[in-house]
Amino acid sequence: MLTLHHLEYSQSFRVLWLLEELGAEYELKIYERDTETYQAPPELKKLSPLGSAPVITDDKVILAESSAIIDYILDEHPDSGLRVSPDSGNRVRYLFWMHASQGSMMSLMLMEAVFQILISRVPFLIRPIIKAILEQASQNLIKPRMTSLLKIAEADLQLSKYFAGDRLTTADIAMVYPMAAAKDRFYLDADYPECNDWLVRVQQSESFKSAAAKDGRDSIVLRV
Amino acid sequence: MLTLHHLEYSQSFRVLWLLEELGAEYELKIYERDTETYQAPPELKKLSPLGSAPVITDDKVILAESSAIIDYILDEHPDSGLRVSPDSGNRVRYLFWMHASQGSMMSLMLMEAVFQILISRVPFLIRPIIKAILEQASQNLIKPRMTSLLKIAEADLQLSKYFAGDRLTTADIAMVYPMAAAKDRFYLDADYPECNDWLVRVQQSESFKSAAAKDGRDSIVLRV
Repeated sequence: MLTLHHLEYSQSFRVLWLLEELGAEYELKIYERDTETYQAPPELKKLSPLGSAPVITDDKVILAESSAIIDYILDEHPDSGLRVSPDSGNRVRYLFWMHASQGSMMSLMLMEAVFQILISRVPFLIRPIIKAILEQASQNLIKPRMTSLLKIAEADLQLSKYFAGDRLTTADIAMVYPMAAAKDRFYLDADYPECNDWLVRVQQSESFKSAAAKDGRDSIVLRV
Repeated sequence: MLTLHHLEYSQSFRVLWLLEELGAEYELKIYERDTETYQAPPELKKLSPLGSAPVITDDKVILAESSAIIDYILDEHPDSGLRVSPDSGNRVRYLFWMHASQGSMMSLMLMEAVFQILISRVPFLIRPIIKAILEQASQNLIKPRMTSLLKIAEADLQLSKYFAGDRLTTADIAMVYPMAAAKDRFYLDADYPECNDWLVRVQQSESFKSAAAKDGRDSIVLRV
Protein backbone atom coordinates (compact mmCIF):
# COMPACT_ATOMS: atom_id res chain seq x y z
CA MET A 1 0.00 0.00 0.00
CA LEU A 2 1.12 3.54 -0.77
CA THR A 3 2.29 5.61 2.18
CA LEU A 4 2.32 9.40 1.99
CA HIS A 5 4.96 11.01 4.17
CA HIS A 6 3.44 14.40 4.75
CA LEU A 7 5.21 17.35 6.35
CA GLU A 8 2.91 19.83 8.08
CA TYR A 9 2.51 23.20 6.32
CA SER A 10 4.14 21.99 3.13
CA GLN A 11 3.67 21.20 -0.52
CA SER A 12 2.82 17.60 0.36
CA PHE A 13 -0.71 18.71 1.25
CA ARG A 14 -1.45 18.51 -2.47
CA VAL A 15 -0.72 14.79 -2.57
CA LEU A 16 -2.97 14.30 0.44
CA TRP A 17 -5.75 16.17 -1.39
CA LEU A 18 -5.21 14.11 -4.56
CA LEU A 19 -5.47 10.85 -2.62
CA GLU A 20 -8.68 12.03 -0.96
CA GLU A 21 -10.13 13.16 -4.29
CA LEU A 22 -9.39 9.70 -5.74
CA GLY A 23 -10.81 7.92 -2.69
CA ALA A 24 -7.57 5.92 -2.75
CA GLU A 25 -6.42 3.57 -0.02
CA TYR A 26 -3.22 4.84 1.54
CA GLU A 27 -1.40 5.24 4.79
CA LEU A 28 -0.64 8.74 6.06
CA LYS A 29 2.37 9.66 8.18
CA ILE A 30 2.53 13.26 9.36
CA TYR A 31 5.84 14.90 10.31
CA GLU A 32 6.33 18.11 12.27
CA ARG A 33 8.73 20.89 11.33
CA ASP A 34 11.56 21.94 13.63
CA THR A 35 10.17 24.91 15.55
CA GLU A 36 13.37 26.97 15.12
CA THR A 37 14.63 26.13 11.63
CA TYR A 38 11.26 25.12 10.10
CA GLN A 39 13.10 22.20 8.50
CA ALA A 40 11.79 18.67 8.14
CA PRO A 41 12.69 16.32 11.02
CA PRO A 42 15.68 13.93 10.62
CA GLU A 43 13.49 10.84 10.04
CA LEU A 44 11.83 12.46 7.02
CA LYS A 45 15.16 13.84 5.76
CA LYS A 46 16.61 10.34 5.91
CA LEU A 47 13.70 8.88 3.98
CA SER A 48 13.35 11.50 1.27
CA PRO A 49 16.00 11.73 -1.43
CA LEU A 50 15.45 15.51 -1.47
CA GLY A 51 15.49 15.83 2.31
CA SER A 52 12.01 17.25 2.16
CA ALA A 53 8.31 16.52 1.63
CA PRO A 54 6.41 15.12 -0.09
CA VAL A 55 7.77 11.65 -0.43
CA ILE A 56 5.80 8.47 -1.02
CA THR A 57 6.80 4.87 -0.43
CA ASP A 58 4.98 2.13 -2.32
CA ASP A 59 6.41 -1.38 -2.13
CA LYS A 60 9.96 -0.85 -3.49
CA VAL A 61 9.28 2.62 -4.86
CA ILE A 62 10.48 5.71 -2.99
CA LEU A 63 9.56 8.85 -4.85
CA ALA A 64 9.98 12.54 -4.03
CA GLU A 65 9.04 15.70 -5.97
CA SER A 66 5.39 16.81 -5.84
CA SER A 67 4.58 16.70 -9.54
CA ALA A 68 6.36 13.37 -10.11
CA ILE A 69 4.27 11.90 -7.28
CA ILE A 70 1.09 13.34 -8.78
CA ASP A 71 1.93 11.74 -12.15
CA TYR A 72 2.81 8.43 -10.47
CA ILE A 73 -0.53 8.33 -8.65
CA LEU A 74 -2.39 9.32 -11.84
CA ASP A 75 -0.70 6.38 -13.63
CA GLU A 76 -2.21 4.08 -10.98
CA HIS A 77 -5.68 5.56 -11.59
CA PRO A 78 -5.89 5.77 -15.39
CA ASP A 79 -9.66 6.38 -15.44
CA SER A 80 -9.78 9.17 -12.87
CA GLY A 81 -10.24 11.93 -15.45
CA LEU A 82 -7.93 14.09 -13.33
CA ARG A 83 -5.23 14.07 -16.03
CA VAL A 84 -6.36 15.83 -19.21
CA SER A 85 -5.54 13.61 -22.20
CA PRO A 86 -3.61 14.76 -25.29
CA ASP A 87 -6.75 14.67 -27.49
CA SER A 88 -8.63 17.16 -25.29
CA GLY A 89 -8.99 20.83 -26.19
CA ASN A 90 -7.99 21.62 -22.61
CA ARG A 91 -4.64 19.80 -22.87
CA VAL A 92 -2.53 22.92 -23.49
CA ARG A 93 -3.97 24.73 -20.45
CA TYR A 94 -3.55 21.59 -18.39
CA LEU A 95 0.13 21.24 -19.37
CA PHE A 96 0.83 24.90 -18.78
CA TRP A 97 -0.60 25.01 -15.24
CA MET A 98 0.70 21.58 -14.22
CA HIS A 99 4.23 22.69 -15.07
CA ALA A 100 3.98 26.44 -14.30
CA SER A 101 2.95 25.51 -10.76
CA GLN A 102 6.39 24.12 -9.88
CA GLY A 103 8.50 25.54 -12.71
CA SER A 104 7.51 29.17 -12.19
CA MET A 105 5.19 29.89 -9.27
CA MET A 106 6.75 27.72 -6.58
CA SER A 107 10.20 28.80 -7.61
CA LEU A 108 9.20 32.47 -7.13
CA MET A 109 7.39 31.75 -3.86
CA LEU A 110 10.43 29.82 -2.59
CA MET A 111 12.68 32.79 -3.36
CA GLU A 112 10.24 35.08 -1.55
CA ALA A 113 10.30 32.76 1.49
CA VAL A 114 14.12 32.65 1.46
CA PHE A 115 14.25 36.47 1.35
CA GLN A 116 11.88 36.65 4.34
CA ILE A 117 13.96 34.13 6.30
CA LEU A 118 17.19 36.01 5.49
CA ILE A 119 15.69 39.32 6.63
CA SER A 120 14.50 37.78 9.90
CA ARG A 121 17.86 36.12 10.64
CA VAL A 122 20.53 38.75 9.91
CA PRO A 123 22.01 40.67 12.85
CA PHE A 124 19.79 43.52 13.99
CA LEU A 125 22.19 46.32 13.01
CA ILE A 126 22.44 45.45 9.35
CA ARG A 127 18.82 44.33 9.01
CA PRO A 128 17.57 47.63 7.50
CA ILE A 129 20.13 47.42 4.66
CA ILE A 130 19.40 43.76 3.93
CA LYS A 131 15.68 44.39 4.11
CA ALA A 132 15.94 47.27 1.64
CA ILE A 133 18.05 45.25 -0.81
CA LEU A 134 15.94 42.10 -0.69
CA GLU A 135 12.64 43.96 -0.85
CA GLN A 136 13.96 45.81 -3.90
CA ALA A 137 14.96 42.48 -5.45
CA SER A 138 11.53 41.09 -4.66
CA GLN A 139 9.91 44.11 -6.36
CA ASN A 140 12.13 43.79 -9.44
CA LEU A 141 12.43 40.04 -9.85
CA ILE A 142 9.53 38.31 -8.14
CA LYS A 143 6.61 40.72 -8.36
CA PRO A 144 6.55 41.28 -12.14
CA ARG A 145 6.68 37.52 -12.80
CA MET A 146 4.03 36.71 -10.19
CA THR A 147 1.83 39.46 -11.64
CA SER A 148 2.19 38.02 -15.16
CA LEU A 149 1.29 34.55 -13.95
CA LEU A 150 -1.68 35.74 -11.89
CA LYS A 151 -3.00 37.75 -14.84
CA ILE A 152 -2.92 34.64 -17.03
CA ALA A 153 -4.58 32.66 -14.23
CA GLU A 154 -7.28 35.32 -13.88
CA ALA A 155 -7.96 35.24 -17.65
CA ASP A 156 -8.10 31.43 -17.74
CA LEU A 157 -10.43 31.24 -14.75
CA GLN A 158 -12.75 33.70 -16.49
CA LEU A 159 -13.15 31.07 -19.23
CA SER A 160 -13.95 28.17 -16.92
CA LYS A 161 -14.31 27.26 -13.26
CA TYR A 162 -11.07 25.29 -13.08
CA PHE A 163 -7.56 25.69 -14.48
CA ALA A 164 -8.03 23.14 -17.24
CA GLY A 165 -11.75 23.44 -17.97
CA ASP A 166 -15.07 22.83 -16.24
CA ARG A 167 -13.95 20.14 -13.86
CA LEU A 168 -11.26 19.67 -11.28
CA THR A 169 -7.96 18.21 -12.56
CA THR A 170 -4.49 17.82 -11.11
CA ALA A 171 -3.67 21.23 -12.61
CA ASP A 172 -5.86 22.66 -9.82
CA ILE A 173 -4.34 20.35 -7.23
CA ALA A 174 -0.82 21.36 -8.31
CA MET A 175 -1.78 25.05 -8.26
CA VAL A 176 -3.39 25.18 -4.83
CA TYR A 177 -0.13 25.47 -2.92
CA PRO A 178 1.44 28.36 -4.88
CA MET A 179 -1.94 30.12 -5.01
CA ALA A 180 -2.39 29.76 -1.23
CA ALA A 181 1.19 31.02 -0.79
CA ALA A 182 0.45 33.95 -3.15
CA LYS A 183 -2.63 34.79 -1.07
CA ASP A 184 -0.61 34.59 2.13
CA ARG A 185 2.07 36.91 0.72
CA PHE A 186 -0.53 39.49 -0.41
CA TYR A 187 -0.11 38.92 -4.14
CA LEU A 188 -3.65 37.68 -4.61
CA ASP A 189 -5.49 40.94 -3.94
CA ALA A 190 -8.79 42.35 -5.18
CA ASP A 191 -7.39 42.66 -8.71
CA TYR A 192 -7.86 38.91 -9.05
CA PRO A 193 -11.51 38.10 -8.21
CA GLU A 194 -11.58 34.87 -10.26
CA CYS A 195 -8.41 33.57 -8.61
CA ASN A 196 -9.80 34.36 -5.17
CA ASP A 197 -13.12 32.68 -6.03
CA TRP A 198 -11.27 29.62 -7.33
CA LEU A 199 -9.24 29.37 -4.11
CA VAL A 200 -12.39 29.51 -1.98
CA ARG A 201 -14.19 27.05 -4.29
CA VAL A 202 -11.49 24.37 -4.21
CA GLN A 203 -11.03 24.72 -0.47
CA GLN A 204 -14.76 24.07 -0.03
CA SER A 205 -14.71 20.85 -2.04
CA GLU A 206 -15.41 17.68 -0.08
CA SER A 207 -12.06 16.11 -0.92
CA PHE A 208 -10.10 19.21 0.14
CA LYS A 209 -12.04 19.39 3.40
CA SER A 210 -11.40 15.75 4.23
CA ALA A 211 -7.69 16.23 3.38
CA ALA A 212 -7.61 19.30 5.65
CA ALA A 213 -9.26 17.30 8.44
CA LYS A 214 -6.60 14.58 8.17
CA ASP A 215 -3.86 17.23 8.03
CA GLY A 216 -5.29 18.90 11.12
CA ARG A 217 -3.58 22.28 10.58
CA ASP A 218 -5.23 25.68 10.13
CA SER A 219 -3.19 26.52 7.03
CA ILE A 220 -1.61 24.55 4.22
CA VAL A 221 1.27 27.00 3.77
CA LEU A 222 4.11 27.72 6.15
CA ARG A 223 3.88 31.08 7.87
CA VAL A 224 7.32 32.28 8.90
CA MET B 1 4.14 25.21 -38.40
CA LEU B 2 5.59 25.39 -34.90
CA THR B 3 7.87 28.35 -34.21
CA LEU B 4 10.35 28.21 -31.35
CA HIS B 5 11.16 31.62 -29.90
CA HIS B 6 14.58 30.98 -28.44
CA LEU B 7 16.47 33.35 -26.16
CA GLU B 8 20.25 33.03 -26.31
CA TYR B 9 21.88 31.46 -23.23
CA SER B 10 18.59 30.27 -21.82
CA GLN B 11 16.46 27.29 -20.91
CA SER B 12 14.90 27.36 -24.37
CA PHE B 13 17.98 25.58 -25.74
CA ARG B 14 16.37 22.36 -24.50
CA VAL B 15 13.38 22.80 -26.80
CA LEU B 16 15.75 23.44 -29.70
CA TRP B 17 17.58 20.21 -28.86
CA LEU B 18 14.30 18.27 -28.61
CA LEU B 19 13.16 19.52 -32.02
CA GLU B 20 16.51 18.51 -33.55
CA GLU B 21 16.37 15.09 -31.88
CA LEU B 22 12.89 14.55 -33.35
CA GLY B 23 13.94 15.79 -36.77
CA ALA B 24 10.82 17.98 -36.60
CA GLU B 25 9.98 20.77 -39.01
CA TYR B 26 9.94 24.10 -37.23
CA GLU B 27 10.87 27.72 -37.53
CA LEU B 28 13.51 29.15 -35.21
CA LYS B 29 13.60 32.76 -34.04
CA ILE B 30 16.58 33.73 -31.89
CA TYR B 31 16.42 36.68 -29.49
CA GLU B 32 19.36 38.43 -27.83
CA ARG B 33 19.52 39.38 -24.17
CA ASP B 34 19.90 43.00 -23.07
CA THR B 35 23.63 43.44 -22.52
CA GLU B 36 23.14 45.29 -19.21
CA THR B 37 20.16 43.65 -17.55
CA TYR B 38 20.47 40.22 -19.25
CA GLN B 39 16.70 40.32 -19.69
CA ALA B 40 14.79 39.16 -22.75
CA PRO B 41 14.14 41.89 -25.35
CA PRO B 42 10.72 43.65 -25.41
CA GLU B 43 9.48 41.74 -28.49
CA LEU B 44 9.94 38.40 -26.70
CA LYS B 45 8.49 39.74 -23.46
CA LYS B 46 5.41 40.87 -25.36
CA LEU B 47 4.98 37.46 -26.97
CA SER B 48 5.59 35.25 -23.97
CA PRO B 49 2.99 35.10 -21.21
CA LEU B 50 5.85 34.70 -18.71
CA GLY B 51 7.93 37.47 -20.24
CA SER B 52 10.68 34.97 -20.87
CA ALA B 53 11.89 32.06 -23.01
CA PRO B 54 11.08 29.51 -24.18
CA VAL B 55 7.80 30.18 -25.86
CA ILE B 56 6.36 28.42 -28.88
CA THR B 57 3.68 29.53 -31.28
CA ASP B 58 1.81 26.92 -33.29
CA ASP B 59 -1.26 28.05 -35.22
CA LYS B 60 -3.45 29.48 -32.43
CA VAL B 61 -1.41 28.01 -29.59
CA ILE B 62 1.01 30.20 -27.63
CA LEU B 63 2.72 28.20 -24.91
CA ALA B 64 5.44 29.07 -22.41
CA GLU B 65 7.13 27.01 -19.66
CA SER B 66 9.89 24.60 -20.75
CA SER B 67 8.39 21.35 -19.50
CA ALA B 68 4.90 22.16 -20.76
CA ILE B 69 6.39 22.80 -24.21
CA ILE B 70 8.32 19.52 -24.04
CA ASP B 71 5.09 17.63 -23.22
CA TYR B 72 3.19 19.49 -25.96
CA ILE B 73 5.80 18.51 -28.57
CA LEU B 74 5.87 14.91 -27.28
CA ASP B 75 2.07 14.77 -27.74
CA GLU B 76 2.60 15.67 -31.40
CA HIS B 77 5.17 12.85 -31.77
CA PRO B 78 3.51 9.93 -29.96
CA ASP B 79 5.90 7.32 -31.38
CA SER B 80 9.16 9.10 -30.60
CA GLY B 81 10.01 6.91 -27.60
CA LEU B 82 11.32 10.02 -25.86
CA ARG B 83 8.53 9.91 -23.26
CA VAL B 84 8.74 6.81 -21.08
CA SER B 85 5.29 5.20 -20.88
CA PRO B 86 3.50 4.26 -17.63
CA ASP B 87 4.01 0.52 -18.23
CA SER B 88 7.82 0.82 -18.40
CA GLY B 89 10.07 -0.10 -15.48
CA ASN B 90 11.87 3.21 -16.08
CA ARG B 91 8.72 5.30 -15.61
CA VAL B 92 9.43 6.31 -11.99
CA ARG B 93 12.95 7.52 -12.81
CA TYR B 94 11.61 9.33 -15.85
CA LEU B 95 8.94 11.13 -13.81
CA PHE B 96 11.38 12.04 -11.07
CA TRP B 97 13.96 13.64 -13.36
CA MET B 98 11.45 15.28 -15.70
CA HIS B 99 9.92 17.07 -12.72
CA ALA B 100 13.01 17.46 -10.49
CA SER B 101 14.69 19.34 -13.33
CA GLN B 102 12.34 22.34 -13.02
CA GLY B 103 10.80 21.70 -9.62
CA SER B 104 14.06 21.41 -7.72
CA MET B 105 17.25 21.94 -9.72
CA MET B 106 16.28 24.98 -11.79
CA SER B 107 14.68 26.59 -8.80
CA LEU B 108 17.97 26.24 -6.85
CA MET B 109 20.07 27.39 -9.82
CA LEU B 110 17.77 30.39 -10.29
CA MET B 111 18.25 31.36 -6.65
CA GLU B 112 22.01 31.00 -7.06
CA ALA B 113 21.90 33.26 -10.13
CA VAL B 114 19.80 35.86 -8.30
CA PHE B 115 22.30 35.86 -5.39
CA GLN B 116 25.17 36.42 -7.86
CA ILE B 117 23.33 39.27 -9.59
CA LEU B 118 22.51 40.89 -6.21
CA ILE B 119 26.14 40.68 -5.10
CA SER B 120 27.35 42.24 -8.35
CA ARG B 121 24.81 45.09 -8.22
CA VAL B 122 24.84 46.39 -4.63
CA PRO B 123 26.86 49.53 -3.88
CA PHE B 124 30.57 48.84 -3.46
CA LEU B 125 30.75 49.77 0.23
CA ILE B 126 28.16 47.28 1.45
CA ARG B 127 29.13 44.55 -1.01
CA PRO B 128 31.30 42.58 1.48
CA ILE B 129 28.39 42.27 3.94
CA ILE B 130 25.90 41.26 1.26
CA LYS B 131 28.38 38.82 -0.24
CA ALA B 132 28.97 37.19 3.15
CA ILE B 133 25.26 36.87 3.89
CA LEU B 134 24.25 35.52 0.49
CA GLU B 135 27.19 33.13 0.28
CA GLN B 136 26.23 31.81 3.70
CA ALA B 137 22.64 31.40 2.51
CA SER B 138 23.90 29.61 -0.58
CA GLN B 139 25.97 27.26 1.61
CA ASN B 140 23.04 26.55 3.93
CA LEU B 141 20.10 26.45 1.56
CA ILE B 142 21.30 25.71 -1.96
CA LYS B 143 24.38 23.54 -1.57
CA PRO B 144 22.90 20.74 0.60
CA ARG B 145 19.93 20.38 -1.76
CA MET B 146 22.08 20.45 -4.89
CA THR B 147 24.40 17.88 -3.33
CA SER B 148 21.46 15.57 -2.53
CA LEU B 149 20.17 15.85 -6.09
CA LEU B 150 23.58 15.31 -7.66
CA LYS B 151 24.18 12.25 -5.48
CA ILE B 152 20.90 10.71 -6.68
CA ALA B 153 21.84 11.62 -10.26
CA GLU B 154 25.26 10.01 -9.84
CA ALA B 155 23.69 6.80 -8.47
CA ASP B 156 21.09 6.66 -11.27
CA LEU B 157 23.70 7.24 -13.97
CA GLN B 158 25.74 4.38 -12.52
CA LEU B 159 22.79 2.12 -13.34
CA SER B 160 22.38 3.24 -16.94
CA LYS B 161 23.76 5.67 -19.50
CA TYR B 162 20.80 8.02 -19.39
CA PHE B 163 18.51 9.41 -16.70
CA ALA B 164 15.63 7.08 -17.51
CA GLY B 165 17.45 4.00 -18.82
CA ASP B 166 19.64 3.00 -21.71
CA ARG B 167 18.39 5.50 -24.23
CA LEU B 168 17.94 9.24 -24.42
CA THR B 169 14.55 10.55 -23.24
CA THR B 170 13.17 13.99 -22.48
CA ALA B 171 14.33 13.44 -18.88
CA ASP B 172 17.86 13.98 -20.25
CA ILE B 173 16.76 16.91 -22.38
CA ALA B 174 15.05 18.54 -19.38
CA MET B 175 18.12 17.90 -17.21
CA VAL B 176 20.78 19.29 -19.52
CA TYR B 177 20.21 22.92 -18.58
CA PRO B 178 20.38 22.57 -14.77
CA MET B 179 23.31 20.14 -15.12
CA ALA B 180 25.20 22.59 -17.36
CA ALA B 181 24.40 25.36 -14.87
CA ALA B 182 25.61 23.14 -12.00
CA LYS B 183 28.85 22.54 -13.90
CA ASP B 184 29.25 26.25 -14.54
CA ARG B 185 28.71 27.05 -10.85
CA PHE B 186 31.31 24.44 -9.75
CA TYR B 187 28.81 22.02 -8.20
CA LEU B 188 29.60 19.25 -10.65
CA ASP B 189 33.14 18.47 -9.54
CA ALA B 190 35.24 15.29 -9.57
CA ASP B 191 32.94 13.69 -6.98
CA TYR B 192 30.46 13.12 -9.79
CA PRO B 193 32.23 11.24 -12.59
CA GLU B 194 29.04 9.71 -14.00
CA CYS B 195 27.31 13.08 -14.15
CA ASN B 196 30.31 14.63 -15.88
CA ASP B 197 30.47 11.74 -18.36
CA TRP B 198 26.75 12.07 -19.06
CA LEU B 199 27.11 15.79 -19.72
CA VAL B 200 29.94 15.19 -22.20
CA ARG B 201 28.04 12.27 -23.81
CA VAL B 202 24.83 14.18 -24.45
CA GLN B 203 26.69 17.23 -25.72
CA GLN B 204 28.43 14.99 -28.25
CA SER B 205 25.18 13.57 -29.63
CA GLU B 206 24.37 14.54 -33.21
CA SER B 207 21.09 16.22 -32.27
CA PHE B 208 22.73 18.32 -29.54
CA LYS B 209 25.50 19.37 -31.90
CA SER B 210 23.09 20.42 -34.62
CA ALA B 211 21.03 22.35 -32.04
CA ALA B 212 24.23 24.05 -30.82
CA ALA B 213 25.12 24.95 -34.42
CA LYS B 214 21.71 26.59 -34.93
CA ASP B 215 22.00 28.36 -31.57
CA GLY B 216 25.46 29.63 -32.52
CA ARG B 217 26.60 30.38 -28.95
CA ASP B 218 29.59 28.93 -27.09
CA SER B 219 27.52 28.07 -24.00
CA ILE B 220 23.92 27.12 -23.33
CA VAL B 221 23.88 28.76 -19.89
CA LEU B 222 24.07 32.43 -19.08
CA ARG B 223 27.34 33.51 -17.54
CA VAL B 224 26.88 36.62 -15.42
